[in-house]
Amino acid sequence: MSNVNWIERGEIAKQWVLEAAEHIKKALASKIHVEAKSNPDDLVTDVDRSTEAFFYEKVSTHFPSHHFLGEEGISENVEQMDGTVWIIDPIDGTMNFVHSQFKFAISLAVYHEGIGKIGIIYDVMAGELFQAIEGQGAFLNGKPVQKITERPLEESILGLNARWIVEDRNPYRRELAQLVRDVRGIRSYGSAALELAYVASNRLDGYISVKLSPWDYAAGIIILKETGCCVTNFNGESLSLLKGGSVFAGKPAFHKEVIKRYVGRER
Amino acid sequence: MSNVNWIERGEIAKQWVLEAAEHIKKALASKIHVEAKSNPDDLVTDVDRSTEAFFYEKVSTHFPSHHFLGEEGISENVEQMDGTVWIIDPIDGTMNFVHSQFKFAISLAVYHEGIGKIGIIYDVMAGELFQAIEGQGAFLNGKPVQKITERPLEESILGLNARWIVEDRNPYRRELAQLVRDVRGIRSYGSAALELAYVASNRLDGYISVKLSPWDYAAGIIILKETGCCVTNFNGESLSLLKGGSVFAGKPAFHKEVIKRYVGRER
Repeated sequence: MSNVNWIERGEIAKQWVLEAAEHIKKALASKIHVEAKSNPDDLVTDVDRSTEAFFYEKVSTHFPSHHFLGEEGISENVEQMDGTVWIIDPIDGTMNFVHSQFKFAISLAVYHEGIGKIGIIYDVMAGELFQAIEGQGAFLNGKPVQKITERPLEESILGLNARWIVEDRNPYRRELAQLVRDVRGIRSYGSAALELAYVASNRLDGYISVKLSPWDYAAGIIILKETGCCVTNFNGESLSLLKGGSVFAGKPAFHKEVIKRYVGRER
Repeated sequence: MSNVNWIERGEIAKQWVLEAAEHIKKALASKIHVEAKSNPDDLVTDVDRSTEAFFYEKVSTHFPSHHFLGEEGISENVEQMDGTVWIIDPIDGTMNFVHSQFKFAISLAVYHEGIGKIGIIYDVMAGELFQAIEGQGAFLNGKPVQKITERPLEESILGLNARWIVEDRNPYRRELAQLVRDVRGIRSYGSAALELAYVASNRLDGYISVKLSPWDYAAGIIILKETGCCVTNFNGESLSLLKGGSVFAGKPAFHKEVIKRYVGRER
């Protein structure tokens, strides 16, 4: 396994993503069946499920020894990150998908022995494909992403869902409210995967969320690393791919300052 | 003036918008000069100014009797809405433009004797052109926009800038915080003009702002009207095109409920 060609494998993964996107676009022409999962706002559709099954079929046929972890419940032997693991969110931003068929993404990551090898985030309707292979840089539709440029915190634009600053049970409510006051602007696109890709491509200076799951950020981690951005939990620790939690991605100086002054354990 | 062909004039306006967008995209290749206006986060660039001048030159040459109101200070005799008035925001979402060259728009409106005749909102980088001519419907890149579908308030997605719910001096802070708790999702794209276009095209159920200026919403009003959406101030009154204030656009039932329960005078 030491001489795997990850660039070639990345090309295969990209073709699968584009193929899945065509299925999704076709499905939009017919009626989509929507269900709630853990709460009334946590949605899943038959298209999420069929897209996950599509990827599982591809991976298990072409790479029978690989493991698979998908948002919609297909999980194969993923209690640790040994071997090669595919982590897939078939439709990240399902609420956007259901409401408006706008700003949702396929997120696909491949890890080998715990190391991120391939990350792809695809905005299906906008046709924007963000991709990184370990050590090869990050690309948007085949061109290097815009280089990140640092700005002082008070001139930064942060991706953050306004829900976090009104929910009393959120332990970071006050800290995030202060951060919202201190930065220059707040954006919210409704797809964590895309917002991580936007940090990597200089569209946002940071993106913060109190709770995400591994399939939301598995690909983002790999793309962010290639652009020199940082992504950790609120204490500045590496993210787990086996269980979710807080996530903060940002340009290095902004990332350091927000953890130190707002959300980190030592603040 | 009673037999003006507004469809033909809308076509001319659209060509100017596309031409202006080409200038803006070219300008992105060179260094952009940024200044702050009323406060450090209220930005203007030489590209905003040159784009406004481009439109003023076009309008004053082709329609010398028309009036003109632009965000960046070109105003010709607009103390009332008599005659034909062009209201233009050359770059709506200047912060996005400066930071990331992503999600900014040209907003162009033509009013005749106070009646909205032509509205155009163009997302320059995404190439999405929203357009309406009075009585002719609303279009996205030449095709009718997605028909609006009503949802209950608790399933709605609202465009709202999180800044409004952390600023103590905002008199609607509590009401908007409660609204954020009650709806299904919050989005923020950083361009009021685009967010109004997104309400008109079923991507958002509503968009709310405590303070906007006429050039931010002049085109949005015309596009929203063609799709059956409502847009008023927080008391449900028609918006002024001569001075700014609160703005709430939404699908009819959602609009009515939010004004009644959250932000209207009679709440």
